[in-house]
Amino acid sequence: VTVQRAIARLVAEGLVETRPGAGNYLTARPEPEPADTSWQAAALGAARPSMDGGLGSGIRSVATDVIGLHTGYPSPELLPTRLLTLALHRATRDPEATLSTSPIAGLPDLRRFFADELSRACPGAVPVGEAQVLITSGGQNALSAALQGLTRPGDTVVMESPTFWGAIGAARAAGLRIAPVGTGPAGIDPGDLHDALTRHHAQVFYAQPTYANPTGVCWPDHVRADVHDVLRSRKAFMIEDDWARDLGLEASSPTPMAAADPDGHVIYIRSLTKSLSPAIRVAALVARGPAAQRITAGRWVADLYVSPLLQRTAIEAVRHPNWQRHLRLLRAGLTLRRDSLHAALTQHAPALTPAAPPDGGLSLWVRLPPGQDSTDVAARCLHAGLAVSPGQEWFPSEPDSQYLRLSYASTPAAQHEQAAHILQRICG
Amino acid sequence: VTVQRAIARLVAEGLVETRPGAGNYLTARPEPEPADTSWQAAALGAARPSMDGGLGSGIRSVATDVIGLHTGYPSPELLPTRLLTLALHRATRDPEATLSTSPIAGLPDLRRFFADELSRACPGAVPVGEAQVLITSGGQNALSAALQGLTRPGDTVVMESPTFWGAIGAARAAGLRIAPVGTGPAGIDPGDLHDALTRHHAQVFYAQPTYANPTGVCWPDHVRADVHDVLRSRKAFMIEDDWARDLGLEASSPTPMAAADPDGHVIYIRSLTKSLSPAIRVAALVARGPAAQRITAGRWVADLYVSPLLQRTAIEAVRHPNWQRHLRLLRAGLTLRRDSLHAALTQHAPALTPAAPPDGGLSLWVRLPPGQDSTDVAARCLHAGLAVSPGQEWFPSEPDSQYLRLSYASTPAAQHEQAAHILQRICG
Repeated sequence: VTVQRAIARLVAEGLVETRPGAGNYLTARPEPEPADTSWQAAALGAARPSMDGGLGSGIRSVATDVIGLHTGYPSPELLPTRLLTLALHRATRDPEATLSTSPIAGLPDLRRFFADELSRACPGAVPVGEAQVLITSGGQNALSAALQGLTRPGDTVVMESPTFWGAIGAARAAGLRIAPVGTGPAGIDPGDLHDALTRHHAQVFYAQPTYANPTGVCWPDHVRADVHDVLRSRKAFMIEDDWARDLGLEASSPTPMAAADPDGHVIYIRSLTKSLSPAIRVAALVARGPAAQRITAGRWVADLYVSPLLQRTAIEAVRHPNWQRHLRLLRAGLTLRRDSLHAALTQHAPALTPAAPPDGGLSLWVRLPPGQDSTDVAARCLHAGLAVSPGQEWFPSEPDSQYLRLSYASTPAAQHEQAAHILQRICG
Repeated sequence: VTVQRAIARLVAEGLVETRPGAGNYLTARPEPEPADTSWQAAALGAARPSMDGGLGSGIRSVATDVIGLHTGYPSPELLPTRLLTLALHRATRDPEATLSTSPIAGLPDLRRFFADELSRACPGAVPVGEAQVLITSGGQNALSAALQGLTRPGDTVVMESPTFWGAIGAARAAGLRIAPVGTGPAGIDPGDLHDALTRHHAQVFYAQPTYANPTGVCWPDHVRADVHDVLRSRKAFMIEDDWARDLGLEASSPTPMAAADPDGHVIYIRSLTKSLSPAIRVAALVARGPAAQRITAGRWVADLYVSPLLQRTAIEAVRHPNWQRHLRLLRAGLTLRRDSLHAALTQHAPALTPAAPPDGGLSLWVRLPPGQDSTDVAARCLHAGLAVSPGQEWFPSEPDSQYLRLSYASTPAAQHEQAAHILQRICG
């Protein structure tokens, strides 16, 4: 009712869009009526699946009075505001950062940071050189480049089911078929991976072994070892999307599989966007051997190079002594919110409470009671003032059950009780 | 001889890279020897043409003591340093710009700027709405998105020959065949375009009608009208890459074809990167009708969204009263350099002097005397301390003659005489 409801309707109709902390905008003046674009239907032909939407709800804006458990980014209170200001100040005073192009592969300092980080993660292994690091415009850009470099249209790529919607979209846009392997509380079954690679003549496997989005699952050591064996025996690549490297809630996170992979089976993706700022879109792709050249040679086609201003800002931030302090604060803040949302569900929506909250990431993955449809539930929640992500978005094929993804990172703990009440009312 | 020569050799061997104004860097520590990545050869399969390089020399770094007539960007003296500083200062104080995501289609203010600019270019036509504008990470990102949205692998795209190497690379990466149409002093022959679209069942034509890169050619009005007729009769799209919108040297530049195109045949690309700063990678793609949806739905796959920091900086710059003054200064500076390089060639390398210098853009397009090979000439020039771009890079198929592209925008006029002497010695 009232203004809130009116705005929600305008948002639903696409006429108004809201930005957190900045109020509501008219999305655009109404599009002028074109004279006749009907000829385009035949010229464009049928839409491919990738062109048919596929963008996850986690990236969408909602009205400011809606509780946003849908977004895939930590809220600004969890970000290193002062450190970012300092880094931006230094970067904007540097003519190299503000008036120049960047080398296609990225600024040497930033490449070295990512190389050193990965080398330190496994001291006994062959170290990673900065020549093996490619800087990209965030993780999505890296995984798009990796898929395009390692495959050709018509190939099959193996993915976890469920998995990140951005990977599903990138695979479809690259003209790939997706062969899903199910994932449970202990990750995938390496035998399933072996069979899928064999049956589909596939040579690329995309996965998030550490705090997967959306399930929060972290593969145990024996699964990682077995997967590495499968990759070797099938002569296959794995794209290890280590999206939550800075979002582990335990004192230490598992070693990336890419850290001990001398033969170059694992292509590693690691982004700073979630832990530094969504506005600083900077990530790294690490690859060994000819695969690195193949991916690098193809990447510039998408956008030539990453703004040196963003790269320099990232360098100034991660090199600052307070970066480690920020990561500790971020972990504490995320832990608080995770526990708060989990407790609120336990108390007010017991049927929706996951058995164990995840040890990393930004969200809870909640199974709906039988007979509920996640897209329908998400729509009803939004009407009631709560934005959640329907589980359907994360499945490359039919889902095994119906789920919601509830992000605890994007809202203060104070809102979690109300969110749990709404959920209980709608689908408890 | 001496240090300069030693550095040039290290650069040639890829061990050292130089950044203008920042001296020489070791490109990277030597890559650690991988244990065995030989299995990747079979896994990767044959390289596709797009994966085989194709990156233009205009983006490469050379030693600081080399005269750089190769780069595709104006040198920093021509950029609006103070205005950029101001814009960056404002953008970095805005939490919306530094701590948020951006809507996938871009910030409303920036979309409106591009919509209004295009609407003003043709007051009688149906105005462009901001809903028809998509913000991209520079022009390359826009043209990659347009090609991917409008075609599917195996399709043919028609292009001018010669044309921008980035478009050739993007087409190949999208799995497209390229049908070239030759371009002369008055642009393409619209009859050739009609025939190429018909023969190859092609529905997309990529072109730069205004100060084309590399030729500098600007299509006269009757060619534009005839091309529009061909597009209508063939029910085809044209991607109008208006890369030099801010780089016209005459008092006024031709109206973009997209400004009067109510039926949505022309997809318009317009970048700020060349006139604002190579570090602020922001461009717009304008499309009408379902084609806009098709392109928008596919674009996020490459990199989700453009940093709001870069978008806000661009808004602050182009909205500032001094922006128009900067464009006048830029035009004056480019005119001075164009005339200086043309005069130096006329005096010292008469055989290499183009008949008429272009009315816009950043470079002269120089035909080599018979028997010379442009790649060979470029290599010999680099040894002599002069970087130029071999014409071969701009041809989607065999070139009709051998050419060099000489950028006047990237070097002060004082270096042009020496450049002309080197050119005369090597290929005059």
